[in-house]
Amino acid sequence: MASKAPIGVFDSGVGGLTVVKEIMNQIPGETIIYFGDTARLPYGSKSQETILTYTRQIVRFLKGKGVKVIVVACNTASAMALETVKAEVDIPMLGVVKPGAKVAADTTKNGRIGIIATEGTIRSGIYNNYINDINPQVQVYGKPCPLLVPLVEEGLLEDPVTTEMVRRYTKDLLEIDIDTLVLGCTHYPLLRKTIRGVVGDGIKLVNPAYETARSLKEVLVGNHLENDSAVKSNHRFYVSDGADKFKKFAKTILPCEVIETKDVNIENY
Amino acid sequence: MASKAPIGVFDSGVGGLTVVKEIMNQIPGETIIYFGDTARLPYGSKSQETILTYTRQIVRFLKGKGVKVIVVACNTASAMALETVKAEVDIPMLGVVKPGAKVAADTTKNGRIGIIATEGTIRSGIYNNYINDINPQVQVYGKPCPLLVPLVEEGLLEDPVTTEMVRRYTKDLLEIDIDTLVLGCTHYPLLRKTIRGVVGDGIKLVNPAYETARSLKEVLVGNHLENDSAVKSNHRFYVSDGADKFKKFAKTILPCEVIETKDVNIENY
Repeated sequence: MASKAPIGVFDSGVGGLTVVKEIMNQIPGETIIYFGDTARLPYGSKSQETILTYTRQIVRFLKGKGVKVIVVACNTASAMALETVKAEVDIPMLGVVKPGAKVAADTTKNGRIGIIATEGTIRSGIYNNYINDINPQVQVYGKPCPLLVPLVEEGLLEDPVTTEMVRRYTKDLLEIDIDTLVLGCTHYPLLRKTIRGVVGDGIKLVNPAYETARSLKEVLVGNHLENDSAVKSNHRFYVSDGADKFKKFAKTILPCEVIETKDVNIENY
Repeated sequence: MASKAPIGVFDSGVGGLTVVKEIMNQIPGETIIYFGDTARLPYGSKSQETILTYTRQIVRFLKGKGVKVIVVACNTASAMALETVKAEVDIPMLGVVKPGAKVAADTTKNGRIGIIATEGTIRSGIYNNYINDINPQVQVYGKPCPLLVPLVEEGLLEDPVTTEMVRRYTKDLLEIDIDTLVLGCTHYPLLRKTIRGVVGDGIKLVNPAYETARSLKEVLVGNHLENDSAVKSNHRFYVSDGADKFKKFAKTILPCEVIETKDVNIENY
């Protein structure tokens, strides 16, 4: 496979753009093909079987675009489908959970880590498993936050309603004295300011997106897949519904022009 | 067709249960088979083509259960798919929009009607069309409320956060002095108390569910399809994801025991 091939990245909606942003910053020579499953979000409240079906469809779509590696920029899909689908494809795939868990385990001083994520991610227990594989002494407390994805998708990033929901969702975690909080859904880094305002400066916020881009770089190097040519194509963005709304949102997040955004009927894949 | 056959009712999730409740109250002798497409909700942000595909699948599923009539207890599907699919099937089908539009047109005194609904229903302009067919003088103002379905699905029916969102969504409608407000999504009657608190007592709230159950009764009588026997089977509930969560919710809404709730892979229909 040519190393000039693009990198496939997907999420249930706009959240994965926080991972795209990190990839653009850390590996600027690569081209990205992004898919946001905006027609079928939220993923967080759906069953594992459903998330597996969706993930397989998106992987077929991205492979059809000739990607050399796939980044599952969605915690729910990383938790529920990555291991299974990874075994079915012939290109490298990586998710956001493992890198995030590693940083969290390395960061905590008092051994108490909070995870905020969707219901699906929390129910899977995957952060607990990865973190305790690294350090069995660490206590991991998960809190599902089902309304944060819809709030982000509606653009209410700094808003009294969002602040109130973050306050409710983090209340128990603050009471049990966590020192590290994992933003366990790729939508949540967009709420960083609001979350910081609620939890205060004493708690380390872990953004798995940063660490995922680092892991991706290692995967590219390890598989001799880096794009070392000076030629770079335009990044391309696809969604399953609402391309215009997505484009407007993407422009506020990404450090580059969002030129091409297209609607795709993902159920045909 | 035997009049003892059940009535098929479907929605994207739990919202259609507000219609089921009205049917149980107004036509207690009938048996209901309900389908909630919880795996693929929300419908409100999807394209017409997608909603057509989903509606056809669900109609095939319900017809396979031997229903004698189908109620589309979802405003989005009523707006985007009912007319097309109705022409394809050999049993009566009715939706929630037409009955709701009729009451609204009959209710307004000052000729200003507000519609709160999903983005898809508002975008379709269907309430405007039906209402202006009845009375071309009436002004119809639509307002999409994308966060209300997630808030209802999370059970925040009476909550300061929901109140605040209802306040924002209805602000413009109140400023232009509507006297009638249509709850144009079957989830919204569950927020009736909150909505009433925000808009005050001077505005009539139209709940299409009530009028839909009345229309259904007329359809049954007109087609000699009423169940006039004393024998009644149990109502049955099917969902495409999360049967347990659905069952818990249904119990809080319906005036009867929710005995049977099953998961269905609707994409196979």
